[in-house]
Amino acid sequence: MPTSESRPPLALALARTAEAVTAYIEGAIARSGAPGERLAGAIRHATLAGGKRLRPFLVVESAALFGVCADRAMPAAAALECIHCYSLVHDDLPAMDNDDLRRGRPTVHRAYDEATAILAGDGLLTLAFEILAGEEDDTDPAVRLALIASLARAAGVAGMIGGQMLDLAAEGRFAQGALHRAPLDLSAEAIIQLQAMKTGALLRQACEAGALLGQASPAERASLDRYARAVGRAFQIADDLLDVEGEASLVGKAVGKDAAAGKATLVGTLGIEGARAELTRLTGEAEAALASFGSAATLLVEAAYFVADRRN
Amino acid sequence: MPTSESRPPLALALARTAEAVTAYIEGAIARSGAPGERLAGAIRHATLAGGKRLRPFLVVESAALFGVCADRAMPAAAALECIHCYSLVHDDLPAMDNDDLRRGRPTVHRAYDEATAILAGDGLLTLAFEILAGEEDDTDPAVRLALIASLARAAGVAGMIGGQMLDLAAEGRFAQGALHRAPLDLSAEAIIQLQAMKTGALLRQACEAGALLGQASPAERASLDRYARAVGRAFQIADDLLDVEGEASLVGKAVGKDAAAGKATLVGTLGIEGARAELTRLTGEAEAALASFGSAATLLVEAAYFVADRRN
Repeated sequence: MPTSESRPPLALALARTAEAVTAYIEGAIARSGAPGERLAGAIRHATLAGGKRLRPFLVVESAALFGVCADRAMPAAAALECIHCYSLVHDDLPAMDNDDLRRGRPTVHRAYDEATAILAGDGLLTLAFEILAGEEDDTDPAVRLALIASLARAAGVAGMIGGQMLDLAAEGRFAQGALHRAPLDLSAEAIIQLQAMKTGALLRQACEAGALLGQASPAERASLDRYARAVGRAFQIADDLLDVEGEASLVGKAVGKDAAAGKATLVGTLGIEGARAELTRLTGEAEAALASFGSAATLLVEAAYFVADRRN
Repeated sequence: MPTSESRPPLALALARTAEAVTAYIEGAIARSGAPGERLAGAIRHATLAGGKRLRPFLVVESAALFGVCADRAMPAAAALECIHCYSLVHDDLPAMDNDDLRRGRPTVHRAYDEATAILAGDGLLTLAFEILAGEEDDTDPAVRLALIASLARAAGVAGMIGGQMLDLAAEGRFAQGALHRAPLDLSAEAIIQLQAMKTGALLRQACEAGALLGQASPAERASLDRYARAVGRAFQIADDLLDVEGEASLVGKAVGKDAAAGKATLVGTLGIEGARAELTRLTGEAEAALASFGSAATLLVEAAYFVADRRN
């Protein structure tokens, strides 16, 4: 793993971006004009509970490769984080994954109620586009349109939403006699495709947003995308390993759920050792993808290792 | 009510826009890249079941006031209709209004299941912004950004979503002992404000989209907005009257639900005769607002009367 003396270490950079994006989102919620306290409270609950803010970090650091400052990357970073947070609120609903706990706190529909959680999720999804189209930004309108199109594609039915739908189908959710459902027996390729959509699409969008802000060349965009694909796959394998090996108190949500649901994961297909080997391969792939950027990409490379090694 | 010999009558114009916007949305769904058939099927169920397509009509006709052709108004019209349709899918969910019937057919969560309905709604909401930011359009990028900002504001927590939240609160949904909830006793002003957000915001956005596409002057925008506010209020009163007086077979959904839920409506506050008088006042207001456009606004004025008189 490379080191750098001229840039702050990863933990510091992550914390700095997390603070900036949290403040940005907090301001956007305050300005959003939500009536009453309940809806805004639920949206704050969904967005301001911490979290690593990995996606905003990838936006900011990808943009930084091209000399774009963090302030100018902040709308794209915040909009993407709003999309991520809304997707968690809706995924946690009783009709979906039915989770009570998220980041160690009650999920939105447990802290409030289901109707409020549905509307808070819808509100956050809409807020993402309000942020990107907002009027106070002086980024080139054509670039801003490209950012909106990129985010909508990644979050839409060909990306995150489509992946969530495949995930429910893989659980046998829509089969006849779905009350006694049996998970489908997916191939490793099918699992990779499902996860590339469900969690990979937003991580790739983070790097694409940075490339768009930086008006990257096609070769630079392709390098960043290769990096983002590897990070996305590493992220999902690390998540699956945590579900098998982690402790709920550290992970901040229920563990062992995937196995209990018979959920298809690469850990189930490759075994724990096979999954660890794949993680090592993927971090190497992520590092190699950014070689042409040299030391400017140090933090992004460190982030790939961080994602693979994380314990929560 | 004015008549015109040079433009097709209202019914023909409505049908023409409905056909064009339906084809446009159908194409957007086909191109969206949804995996499998279930998600795309649910989205088609939500969007292609007919309906008057009143909002697209208002977009197209408002734009036509400034010489903008229907084709160029179609992305804005289709995006707004996607937002309208997603809101119906989510409003019908068991945790929200719990409706089984919509336009005479099963609601999406009844025809499919709750998880699919949540994701189909999320997908449609996202598709709206994908359409507006899509690359095949040659409208000025600054105008397209303004359209996106306008739609996000109208559909967001300060508009439609906020109004839906106020509506649930008015039903006493969030009160202590919510299982035995008692509706709040709202003033006429509070009901008007709630409805201005819940249903009015999207109808106003339709006319605002036309004004943005047409690069209308501030005075022209204000006139169209005055018209749209009056139409929005007339629309809601007509809806409330249908709930009291209509037959389910004509209306295409359950009737009498508002009274059963003790829902606050202007019909409840003003009485049926008072509500009819207010409808007459509002159609006059809508017509007066467009006087400066002369005969070019004939179809829009006829639409205001149509909205007030509709039987389904």
